[in-house]
Amino acid sequence: MAGSSFGKLFKITTCGESHGGAVGVIIDGCPAGLDISEIEIQQELDRRKPGQSHLTTSRNEQDSIHILSGVFEGKTTGTPILLLSYNADMRPEDYETLKKVYRPSHADYTYQIKYGRRDYRGSGRASARETLARVAAGAIAKKYLKTKLNIEILSYVEQVGSIFSEIDYKTVRAEAIESNIIRCPDLNAAEKMMSFIEEIRNNGDSIGGVIKCVIRHVPAGLGEPVFDKLAADLGKAMLSINAVKGFEIGSGFKGATMRGSEHNDPFVIEEGNLKIKTNHAGGTLGGISTGEDIYFRVAFKPVSTISQIQHTVSLAHDPMLLEATGRHDPCVLPRAVPIVDAMSALVIMDHFLRHNAFFARPLKNNG
Amino acid sequence: MAGSSFGKLFKITTCGESHGGAVGVIIDGCPAGLDISEIEIQQELDRRKPGQSHLTTSRNEQDSIHILSGVFEGKTTGTPILLLSYNADMRPEDYETLKKVYRPSHADYTYQIKYGRRDYRGSGRASARETLARVAAGAIAKKYLKTKLNIEILSYVEQVGSIFSEIDYKTVRAEAIESNIIRCPDLNAAEKMMSFIEEIRNNGDSIGGVIKCVIRHVPAGLGEPVFDKLAADLGKAMLSINAVKGFEIGSGFKGATMRGSEHNDPFVIEEGNLKIKTNHAGGTLGGISTGEDIYFRVAFKPVSTISQIQHTVSLAHDPMLLEATGRHDPCVLPRAVPIVDAMSALVIMDHFLRHNAFFARPLKNNG
Amino acid sequence: MAGSSFGKLFKITTCGESHGGAVGVIIDGCPAGLDISEIEIQQELDRRKPGQSHLTTSRNEQDSIHILSGVFEGKTTGTPILLLSYNADMRPEDYETLKKVYRPSHADYTYQIKYGRRDYRGSGRASARETLARVAAGAIAKKYLKTKLNIEILSYVEQVGSIFSEIDYKTVRAEAIESNIIRCPDLNAAEKMMSFIEEIRNNGDSIGGVIKCVIRHVPAGLGEPVFDKLAADLGKAMLSINAVKGFEIGSGFKGATMRGSEHNDPFVIEEGNLKIKTNHAGGTLGGISTGEDIYFRVAFKPVSTISQIQHTVSLAHDPMLLEATGRHDPCVLPRAVPIVDAMSALVIMDHFLRHNAFFARPLKNNG
Amino acid sequence: MAGSSFGKLFKITTCGESHGGAVGVIIDGCPAGLDISEIEIQQELDRRKPGQSHLTTSRNEQDSIHILSGVFEGKTTGTPILLLSYNADMRPEDYETLKKVYRPSHADYTYQIKYGRRDYRGSGRASARETLARVAAGAIAKKYLKTKLNIEILSYVEQVGSIFSEIDYKTVRAEAIESNIIRCPDLNAAEKMMSFIEEIRNNGDSIGGVIKCVIRHVPAGLGEPVFDKLAADLGKAMLSINAVKGFEIGSGFKGATMRGSEHNDPFVIEEGNLKIKTNHAGGTLGGISTGEDIYFRVAFKPVSTISQIQHTVSLAHDPMLLEATGRHDPCVLPRAVPIVDAMSALVIMDHFLRHNAFFARPLKNNG
Repeated sequence: MAGSSFGKLFKITTCGESHGGAVGVIIDGCPAGLDISEIEIQQELDRRKPGQSHLTTSRNEQDSIHILSGVFEGKTTGTPILLLSYNADMRPEDYETLKKVYRPSHADYTYQIKYGRRDYRGSGRASARETLARVAAGAIAKKYLKTKLNIEILSYVEQVGSIFSEIDYKTVRAEAIESNIIRCPDLNAAEKMMSFIEEIRNNGDSIGGVIKCVIRHVPAGLGEPVFDKLAADLGKAMLSINAVKGFEIGSGFKGATMRGSEHNDPFVIEEGNLKIKTNHAGGTLGGISTGEDIYFRVAFKPVSTISQIQHTVSLAHDPMLLEATGRHDPCVLPRAVPIVDAMSALVIMDHFLRHNAFFARPLKNNG
Repeated sequence: MAGSSFGKLFKITTCGESHGGAVGVIIDGCPAGLDISEIEIQQELDRRKPGQSHLTTSRNEQDSIHILSGVFEGKTTGTPILLLSYNADMRPEDYETLKKVYRPSHADYTYQIKYGRRDYRGSGRASARETLARVAAGAIAKKYLKTKLNIEILSYVEQVGSIFSEIDYKTVRAEAIESNIIRCPDLNAAEKMMSFIEEIRNNGDSIGGVIKCVIRHVPAGLGEPVFDKLAADLGKAMLSINAVKGFEIGSGFKGATMRGSEHNDPFVIEEGNLKIKTNHAGGTLGGISTGEDIYFRVAFKPVSTISQIQHTVSLAHDPMLLEATGRHDPCVLPRAVPIVDAMSALVIMDHFLRHNAFFARPLKNNG
Repeated sequence: MAGSSFGKLFKITTCGESHGGAVGVIIDGCPAGLDISEIEIQQELDRRKPGQSHLTTSRNEQDSIHILSGVFEGKTTGTPILLLSYNADMRPEDYETLKKVYRPSHADYTYQIKYGRRDYRGSGRASARETLARVAAGAIAKKYLKTKLNIEILSYVEQVGSIFSEIDYKTVRAEAIESNIIRCPDLNAAEKMMSFIEEIRNNGDSIGGVIKCVIRHVPAGLGEPVFDKLAADLGKAMLSINAVKGFEIGSGFKGATMRGSEHNDPFVIEEGNLKIKTNHAGGTLGGISTGEDIYFRVAFKPVSTISQIQHTVSLAHDPMLLEATGRHDPCVLPRAVPIVDAMSALVIMDHFLRHNAFFARPLKNNG
Repeated sequence: MAGSSFGKLFKITTCGESHGGAVGVIIDGCPAGLDISEIEIQQELDRRKPGQSHLTTSRNEQDSIHILSGVFEGKTTGTPILLLSYNADMRPEDYETLKKVYRPSHADYTYQIKYGRRDYRGSGRASARETLARVAAGAIAKKYLKTKLNIEILSYVEQVGSIFSEIDYKTVRAEAIESNIIRCPDLNAAEKMMSFIEEIRNNGDSIGGVIKCVIRHVPAGLGEPVFDKLAADLGKAMLSINAVKGFEIGSGFKGATMRGSEHNDPFVIEEGNLKIKTNHAGGTLGGISTGEDIYFRVAFKPVSTISQIQHTVSLAHDPMLLEATGRHDPCVLPRAVPIVDAMSALVIMDHFLRHNAFFARPLKNNG
């Protein structure tokens, strides 16, 4: 109720501030018998960790994950799984400035107003370090979906500023995404994005972008009608990520300009299987998966921490100048890719279990 | 868990198919002592009802609302409120075609696959008639927010196809929205939208659009960090509405193209009060309301029911031609305005109660 | 959150006051494809209705049930089921006394304190009429459990005042329970209970008692460890019924006086099947069903409405005398039997779906 | 949904097996601004820890608690609190026997059947060590209730086998409870209990008993009607504790033998205050607190681990003899007292927040 849980059956509860003792997550509702190891989870975490390249921040963040419960002899037992990453690097002297200022477009002010106090070290609970817990939990969901149901989740950077990838989502492969530090499968666009981000960094500025996600081989029938539509839960998942300002599925905002006669997706029979052409719907109808690819786009605003001097206000409501110190990410998109992956995996996993509850029968893929 | 509940403290559970006995909603969690009458709820319902003008469908739908529990002597008692609208007009002979076909971009196929059966009369549970229950419940939330907290929610049609309203959301007034059948406060744009929709209707086609919503006077501090961010819950609420394909808050997708130095919203002191300039954030930071206007946009695809002949597939997987009969809405946007209002009210109301829970107020002992 | 929902996957939400428009329930989470009719539900309701014999109250209560959604062509569709029973017999003049008094051991005072107002007609939301909604929803769960899983639920009156049934729960049959108006399968005890209740009635008094419930053929493996233990959820279900003051499962309070060497239930192999002797556990270990009979006892206090004159206090805190008018139940136990049945069915059904969620495999009975 | 969460607003999620990495709990929903330290929590934990006297087991269990998030500068921040106690003493060689046997009245069998595997070290997730997490979380709730609302929770051993405390719950003081190792405020009875437990231990046996709990100064008005009655939630909380077989509130099972005329609690005015005499209700009416003392009894069966040889069955379904090694608790009651305290605190705290939610308090707008 206080906002740190996600999912209903595959339910995660995260905890931890950027500079407290640890960041962690309890997963309550993971089916028993899944092979899982710290190494596999670490691989996903390494994709979001700072300092992977000169384009991302190189703060010395501790990302090592520990499994403290719920796994025995290499397999999940069906009981709650605690994943923990200890924080390091707590130097109190760094926080004197943060204590007294409301940084523009950060959550300092709203936390202070809501709770009457805040952990001002780093960004406290509002820090992007919280997403470490999501990626760790998502790694387990992703593994389950891949090994038990052959569901594949691929997120990638489609847009940085006004530079776009031209690759069709239907043809994107994991290797192409991981082939460059931008995590953009269109190498041409990736090059341009890299130079542009370099320029942004040199200006002490930051830049936004869009991540696209495609989810393949989701069986038809997942998702609950009315309020817990699959698209609604995916949207909520994405909009809960720091810096996300928009979500669109299938035709999205472009669909608003279309006519029914061009937007409607015809049903056809291909090689004996029912298929849905065009898929403007983006893989769901009435909130329920169709068996076609689910695809959507997630808009990220530029990160709020920049190196330029900014006008702002102190805790005491005095106008002041803020000068950021230390390094920051000019573009968070490449590191956000595994977060979008993780949140997608959590939503699909939760809906798989929810669907399962009401049926004792196997689910079939579309084709 | 099966998807028909929304909200955690101001919790609604809806029920009903388009052609079953009734459409209804139970609200569990409405504070005691609120004045409420069937007439007030009916006023909101009348804004979504079919047949308000020649631009919307004129099916003879029954929209009369009945309060069957939870209100006594004109005031809410704190116990569950049941609101019900009986269905009429059930002519079995109309449904023989619907029984055997998967209509393009409708939920016939996914319901059939999920449940192994479906109520094929109208669109059954997937019918837009379900939104009647949302608007009825939302009317109570809206009343509470307005009378107790002075919170104002204004939704309006900002875009139909590629025709845009040019009015700044900051200046929009309720009277301007209700001044025309499109519910677009820019009368110039409204005229163009009307002619365009008329043309669409004459072609037996349909058209999408965008609804904008602004929420004023929300106190700073509402919303839960991490997963239940205000923006995430608003996004889910909107994406749970039939035909919605996109949601963006504040700068939205445009924010993806911006630099931090232009996107960051400066804190300032104005007449002794802390204010936030530019408000690209759209009224929330870190998931929590800032006290500035909350504003967002919701993209609707064109409605799936059109009068043109379409290729599709039967329940038996045979290709067939579908010819729609009866009247339909060429553009659902004007009738969707009160639904966006209602869902917004439900989200804000729920977060108000959630916030309330954690802030102590003295209780008195017996003696 | 406001207390009118029960269950997580087979989730019911009830509404209605004793003298408002209707009492009803929405079931969200009933699997699709179950045959169900108003007649079957009515049969369970008729077991709890007043006026079945001269031992129970003969108020002219309306108990007819209507299915208003979620059932199509005689089968559940998987969407929410609304069951409704309209109230009748609202004579405002009867309530003037009730308006101003706090009746001893009723909820008048606590509702007034909590909400600042109350529906004083009858007992409003605190009326036992609310249990009609539970029995109606329970009838559907009971039907599902019986037809799909062969699970049998039998509740009966084991004790009235200090008169006990001597029948072993293992041998009780439904026919014996329904063979007499007390719903006590020990006919000898039933006779004594009847005369005793007659005497209580003649004194204008009321009397408490105990209902026993046995649930047969529950597969091993249902129930969630730690907080949502099967026994804990059964206990909560029973303690949520009006007038219930105690719950014990298996050895119960007697177990507190036993030694481990006599209480421990040995595992044995019988005809190739694992069985558990003695079953002091009452059918669960570690919160999870063992496959043996689940059995428990539920203590009901005497009903608070009596015909004798009582000292009490008015709304204005003045001492006053209360004289009950009209008829009342001297012993509520026989009518409470179907409520215990219903709540048991709701708990088992919910845990069946919860278990189902995490496993895609069939469940086996113990023997 | 998988059972490891408790509470809705003051929500705890526990994790950990007896011999995994750690036992822990996340509290999501603790109000900001409460002073809390590891030392205070440790004090409650020390009351449940093994080896406090020669009457309880002296296994070398690690009970040190660590606060890893949600507390900053000595105060809660409103964000999730992670409390962790690391396990020690994992000697794999000890578990070879446990791996292959179903111990009578333990959860070995049901976990194996439910999950298809189990952590057989100690009792894994079914171990009483899990209650450490409850006591840790409960310590925070207890502190809040005491300091902010003056609510006092006192549990004590009222019965061991057939030896009863004769002290009236109304007069019990914390010092009397803690004055002896049995935690029985009647020193006479405590002496007898001690000798009896010594005898039980010498026989290699175990014994059950009853814990009584009284909660003082709960304001009138807490608790939700219908399903989430205060008594129902207290009952569930207690029945979720290992080895609990029964719960009764107020008159309890004795109430079943009483007449309405003797059971009804009269309202009276004393020194200008409304009071409720006799309090057979046990402090709640209609599920809502009356402002009088809440009191209830909790029945514990004898612990299942005994030193006598027992007949049982192996994992391979072969009959076998089980000989317990190591030390065990002959009577768990004294150590269970802080667990009953903790669960009570969690229920009252949760209902306090829930009540709080629905009662409006002014919020301030930004300007």
